[in-house]
Amino acid sequence: MKCHICGEKASVNMREHKLALCKEHYLEWVPAQVERSIKKYGLFRQEEKMLVAVSGGKDSLSLWDILQRLGYHADGLYICLGIDEGIGYSTESQRLAVKFATNHGLNLHVVNIQSEYGATIPQITRRTHRGRIKPCSICGLVKRHVMNRIARDLDYDVLATGHNLDDEAAVLFGNTLSWSGEYLLRQGPLLPGSAGLARKVKPLCRLYEREMLAYALLQEIEYIYEECPYSIGSTSIYYKELLNRLENERPGAKLSFYLAFLEARKTGLFTEREKIQAELHSCSRCGQPTSAPGLCSFCRLLERTTSVALNERNT
Amino acid sequence: MKCHICGEKASVNMREHKLALCKEHYLEWVPAQVERSIKKYGLFRQEEKMLVAVSGGKDSLSLWDILQRLGYHADGLYICLGIDEGIGYSTESQRLAVKFATNHGLNLHVVNIQSEYGATIPQITRRTHRGRIKPCSICGLVKRHVMNRIARDLDYDVLATGHNLDDEAAVLFGNTLSWSGEYLLRQGPLLPGSAGLARKVKPLCRLYEREMLAYALLQEIEYIYEECPYSIGSTSIYYKELLNRLENERPGAKLSFYLAFLEARKTGLFTEREKIQAELHSCSRCGQPTSAPGLCSFCRLLERTTSVALNERNT
Repeated sequence: MKCHICGEKASVNMREHKLALCKEHYLEWVPAQVERSIKKYGLFRQEEKMLVAVSGGKDSLSLWDILQRLGYHADGLYICLGIDEGIGYSTESQRLAVKFATNHGLNLHVVNIQSEYGATIPQITRRTHRGRIKPCSICGLVKRHVMNRIARDLDYDVLATGHNLDDEAAVLFGNTLSWSGEYLLRQGPLLPGSAGLARKVKPLCRLYEREMLAYALLQEIEYIYEECPYSIGSTSIYYKELLNRLENERPGAKLSFYLAFLEARKTGLFTEREKIQAELHSCSRCGQPTSAPGLCSFCRLLERTTSVALNERNT
Repeated sequence: MKCHICGEKASVNMREHKLALCKEHYLEWVPAQVERSIKKYGLFRQEEKMLVAVSGGKDSLSLWDILQRLGYHADGLYICLGIDEGIGYSTESQRLAVKFATNHGLNLHVVNIQSEYGATIPQITRRTHRGRIKPCSICGLVKRHVMNRIARDLDYDVLATGHNLDDEAAVLFGNTLSWSGEYLLRQGPLLPGSAGLARKVKPLCRLYEREMLAYALLQEIEYIYEECPYSIGSTSIYYKELLNRLENERPGAKLSFYLAFLEARKTGLFTEREKIQAELHSCSRCGQPTSAPGLCSFCRLLERTTSVALNERNT
């Protein structure tokens, strides 16, 4: 297999695009694809101040790398979730995020959930749900809150995450199986900001997971190989496997499923109900927007965590 | 496993409904489900004159059986497609359809494509596309035309087909993968009639294929076991297999995918564009509605078939 551009030996063959490229041209092709998405979906402008959520994994570190190469100004945010028991997952991913920032002369904010809120994600889950649920939904809630708080407090215009096509297609697939209108209408590469809520963007949404893996490997980005231990057996991984079977038999199926959805949405397939969404309130403690008056979900979670911790100490 | 109603030995266990039933109660349960769909989706009324498209397969013969048991007046329509070469598929399915009608004292119309239009479906396909495509799309076009013609000429109020849940979910799945708005918005148990187009209904849309199979077996309906030979390797069978994998791991997934779609549509998820659809024209030859002036797709197909046949004779 030869590089489509220079004829040298190809390093990456993408059946989904009928395109093979050598290392040099692949490392140019990926950032060009990202730039194309940024422009096509109007994600952000050159002069805007951006915060990249960095987990230490291949997608978010590659995204940060690519944004820098494309000349965008992007700081990083690493949230230490305290998922360490026995495996050092958070410790290792933080080390890699910090190392990447140092090596590239980039600015990284680190928020430690335990130091700031008194408990790690596994502890919060055990205290509030007695460990009966997986921590994923709580973890998502906490990360969304922290990302939004940092973006607001430090005046970032936009929050970028490293979700790739496989992530996006799996979420879309799940929302389609249940036809969740509310979630379907929120999905896409760009979630516009509103009062108190930062704009959220996903510049990698058109790149397959294996394309991002190839980028990280060829660019020699040091990232954490392990998946979060709690992700094993999750619904999203199940949907990814199902879509992979479809993709294996019909290369490009995943991409066309996602792009056709965006196109159908753009051309008015759906009734855009978000425009008539009820007004948001301000959380009485943290000030972040919330759907009901009083405390937001995050502050309610923290309150439950603290009261359980106090009870444990008193008994 | 015991019958949920009488405690006798169960004949059918439906994981998707967490319900097991004996033969007697299963043969009551299926018609009750069909009646529920007829009422829920407002498919037709007791006094309406109905035409059931009967293929000789388990679904359409069971549908005819059930409608009769529920007290509806339904005649049958068998369309002989001439898919016989070497296998006698059409001959055998016609024999079974006729036998069912005779045994039940029901009225069956038989339309023979070759006698009426001069060529079988395989012949039309060979003549118009030199055999380069599978005959399925042509077969669908011809059947739709004939069903509609008979319904119009003989004054039937409604056309019923034996599509089961697996059929409907597979079509929905395909239309969702490509986000085909036009097809998504037409899908459902009821396609209202309009000038020159009969109302179309699918009373079996909530019943799994294996539930219909169990009904046909327990009711001792003699049907054709073979699938149409041209259906092998079709896209719809591929989607059915994919949905079966999903269903195996999550019983009920197929039903909830389909029902959630209908519910989302009903509650306004989609912009109902069909309402602003362009006006239909009348075919200058057969008089059936068509999207463009002049001949309809069916009459254009026939014209091509005839001219190719004449050329063949002249050379």
